[in-house]
Amino acid sequence: MQARPAKWWGWGFEDRSVPLESKPALLALLRQVLELPPTDLLPVPDPETIRLPPSRLSNEELAEFRKIIGEEGIAASDRDRLTHGTGRSYRDLIRLRLGPIPPPPDLVLFPEGDEDIRRLLEFCSEKEVRVIPFGGGTSVVGGVEVVDASRPHITIDLRRMRRVLAVDEMSLLATAQAGIRGPLLEEELGAHGLTVGHFPQSFEFSTLGGWIASRSSGALSNRYGKIEDLVAGLRLVAPSGVYDMQSRPRHAMGPDLLGLAVGSEGALGVITQATIRVHRAPEARAFESFLFRSFHDGLEALRGMAQDGVPAHMTYLMDEDETRLAAATAGGSGSRTARGGSLLLIGYEGSRGLVRDHLAAGRRYCGAGSAAGPGPAEGWFRERYDTPYLRDSLIDHRIMVDTVETATTWSNLERLYEGARKALLTGIWGTGVQGLVGCHVSHVYTEGASLYFTFLARQKRGDEIPQYDAVKAAATRAILDLGGHLSHHHGVGVEHAKYLREAIGDESWRLLRDLKRTLDPKGIMNPGKVYAVGA
Amino acid sequence: MQARPAKWWGWGFEDRSVPLESKPALLALLRQVLELPPTDLLPVPDPETIRLPPSRLSNEELAEFRKIIGEEGIAASDRDRLTHGTGRSYRDLIRLRLGPIPPPPDLVLFPEGDEDIRRLLEFCSEKEVRVIPFGGGTSVVGGVEVVDASRPHITIDLRRMRRVLAVDEMSLLATAQAGIRGPLLEEELGAHGLTVGHFPQSFEFSTLGGWIASRSSGALSNRYGKIEDLVAGLRLVAPSGVYDMQSRPRHAMGPDLLGLAVGSEGALGVITQATIRVHRAPEARAFESFLFRSFHDGLEALRGMAQDGVPAHMTYLMDEDETRLAAATAGGSGSRTARGGSLLLIGYEGSRGLVRDHLAAGRRYCGAGSAAGPGPAEGWFRERYDTPYLRDSLIDHRIMVDTVETATTWSNLERLYEGARKALLTGIWGTGVQGLVGCHVSHVYTEGASLYFTFLARQKRGDEIPQYDAVKAAATRAILDLGGHLSHHHGVGVEHAKYLREAIGDESWRLLRDLKRTLDPKGIMNPGKVYAVGA
Repeated sequence: MQARPAKWWGWGFEDRSVPLESKPALLALLRQVLELPPTDLLPVPDPETIRLPPSRLSNEELAEFRKIIGEEGIAASDRDRLTHGTGRSYRDLIRLRLGPIPPPPDLVLFPEGDEDIRRLLEFCSEKEVRVIPFGGGTSVVGGVEVVDASRPHITIDLRRMRRVLAVDEMSLLATAQAGIRGPLLEEELGAHGLTVGHFPQSFEFSTLGGWIASRSSGALSNRYGKIEDLVAGLRLVAPSGVYDMQSRPRHAMGPDLLGLAVGSEGALGVITQATIRVHRAPEARAFESFLFRSFHDGLEALRGMAQDGVPAHMTYLMDEDETRLAAATAGGSGSRTARGGSLLLIGYEGSRGLVRDHLAAGRRYCGAGSAAGPGPAEGWFRERYDTPYLRDSLIDHRIMVDTVETATTWSNLERLYEGARKALLTGIWGTGVQGLVGCHVSHVYTEGASLYFTFLARQKRGDEIPQYDAVKAAATRAILDLGGHLSHHHGVGVEHAKYLREAIGDESWRLLRDLKRTLDPKGIMNPGKVYAVGA
Repeated sequence: MQARPAKWWGWGFEDRSVPLESKPALLALLRQVLELPPTDLLPVPDPETIRLPPSRLSNEELAEFRKIIGEEGIAASDRDRLTHGTGRSYRDLIRLRLGPIPPPPDLVLFPEGDEDIRRLLEFCSEKEVRVIPFGGGTSVVGGVEVVDASRPHITIDLRRMRRVLAVDEMSLLATAQAGIRGPLLEEELGAHGLTVGHFPQSFEFSTLGGWIASRSSGALSNRYGKIEDLVAGLRLVAPSGVYDMQSRPRHAMGPDLLGLAVGSEGALGVITQATIRVHRAPEARAFESFLFRSFHDGLEALRGMAQDGVPAHMTYLMDEDETRLAAATAGGSGSRTARGGSLLLIGYEGSRGLVRDHLAAGRRYCGAGSAAGPGPAEGWFRERYDTPYLRDSLIDHRIMVDTVETATTWSNLERLYEGARKALLTGIWGTGVQGLVGCHVSHVYTEGASLYFTFLARQKRGDEIPQYDAVKAAATRAILDLGGHLSHHHGVGVEHAKYLREAIGDESWRLLRDLKRTLDPKGIMNPGKVYAVGA
């Protein structure tokens, strides 16, 4: 069932890591700014010492699951339960290292088809067993954990459902099972000369279904769209039935139901397959980097490109502090970027002509900055999947590290940036330590953009989770007060569930609840997420 | 309340008409192909002779409406009821001329604000009075008519709610009340150097709210998007509450609720205001026309442009028969286009550089056709709001004339085209007369395109509506059997309601019904439309 083994306690493959020690300039910067004590590493516990509570499923229930899905589709070992019990947020990683270990699911199931899942949901509805669709398990908002441990839970992992079912080259559409991960999907489409073009940071581990369920966004979203722009149809297997929803191309057949399944985060049903818009594989790719005097100047360049319909396909504009962090990470403490300013990385892909023309346009819009060559942008693109590995090493060094993301209109963007940044710093100081907060913009639209904050601080020993919760709460409070979205592409999960009602308004929130009741009358689907609070 | 008077019996302004006699080549063609008898015009009745049933509202109810909305917001005259009793479909125009006149609403109300509407819906829910939101009344699918005349109905006309509420020039967003019509909206935004860019054929009469409720599409949709691409937020006043739904820019805060109000066709509530993405007013505009050997060759050019991300902003590709019709309409019976082939009209607007570059690209993609100069495209663009006026004159000449539109993927497009065309012709022949069927494509996407059929035939005297219903049914049957959408931009209304369940599937249809029950528990909103059959 497992190919290359994955870490149970951290990000990604067991045999891959990115130690902070490999980035001495960054380590030096963090030691200084965060006032880190001399080396004092946080260990990873021996998994053999972890004792999980026994499964709450009865023998009859286990027998029925075996009947529905077959023995080979069932995993009940502590290892399987443990690796399916959390996502990959900072909270998750800290709880795995320091405990208490979050309550795991009672059983992990690996269905082979839509009908397996339909029968599973039918049986679970009857028994009121809770069901957590797992995706790739990379949620950073608590999207896959057991919230109410008083009830039995199963986790459904779709890794055996990873086939490409149809490719319509003429219409640039592909249909695949939802359990397919990024690399296999790109490989299969590559054989047709096609690409999806969806490259979230979790690309190697996250699944098509997970992308759709969580409204994810990729590094080239400004060319290919956010996942909701790429989905042309899907199948949702819900407790109330099996829904085939589609929009290819546009229609005028009443309300859009497809958009209800997108972002449903497993709380309405299981997305089992999807049809996505695909693109001809690019002939060429080009990068460039610019150093702006200020984050503001960089934002103006991004807005100009986006509003004139020529956004850089890859856009990564860092504020002054993130520019400093990036320079240190790249080992360039003495480089030009370390001396201040706001670094913008841009990239294009497509036909040779398109890349040439758009890059030329990009240079014109970035005239207020000084060109820094393709190097920084190329480097970032090459190493873009490394950052979550580095995070584990930061945690080794007892550094609190997490991200907070939001989005708003251009007219509100700088106000939201200033306010959320200040709230993060003040929140960190409130826990008695120094902090570092960087921000970047990587998804732009005609009407606005996302903001992605990274914050780092020395962990408060013995108080790691409350410290984190305090900072996160301060940031979220500021974001909501300043009109920002609760999330642009991480999702709601457990982390944001308690704020959803405020974020979307009482009436919309009640409508979501009613929708949930319609699709999931017994409330078995991924409870505690999205629709959780104030039931 | 009325500025320039509108026809009660036909399209548009009373003082404007486009007589078929002004297009002698077209008249000659139709006489010949449709075997029209010598002039025998269908008259328009004297409205004074039309007797409407008395209002079914009680004096107490009328008093309450007066209390909510004020005397000046109420119209109960026969003229007001008659002009609000139908849309502008062929069925509507025939029924207005020949009777029986469709049952009109019992009262027409012109609210001034969201709170008026909220109170109206509250009172109507209590009394189970049905409510029809009117938009501009240009529905061609029976979207505004009274279906069950056994219950009292009010029609809500938002013409007094036409203010632009906010313009955010930095974020290219504008918020306006839903009753604003195309020309006023463009005028108000023009003062800011902005445009919405939404130009449906009904532009002069239809409203922002109506566009959104019916999922409309405009002549430049390939540049600016279909209305669902333009909506960034809206307020829906429903019997169950007031919903502010938004997505500006993208979010990851659960399912998309905004998409439920888009396409709701007045059956979930009244859209009272909306925030839309706007664009800088174009500096330049350019047109070109090409004659292709076949419709197929033209489709391949459109697909190439769409899939490479450079669709012509205005795209209008006619099949061979529509090309003949267009040539005759333009008076060019001896022109090149009349000798066969498939005419493509394209147009671009935007900055000078963009128009130049895109037009150059367009010429390259249309290499298989022969350039026919900007004239035909310019002429079409200039006269694009005339066609519905011409329709009234065709009806004068006792010609059945209507349109059927659908959409599908590129790989299915020609099969659907052939099948629907054949079904229309066979359907017409089945009524014992000759017919003419043209088709054009004007909305293109990476994965597919719309098909827009126009059909003409000699009316069967005394049997006009059954004749029409037979042809429409034959076309709809073929479209559904061949995997086409029930509608691309006209909507569901009454005409398509009985097919919706088949078109979207049992499970999705039940979900829509449940959604309707949630938002409109008493079922007072625009009954008989969208969700009508099999309740």
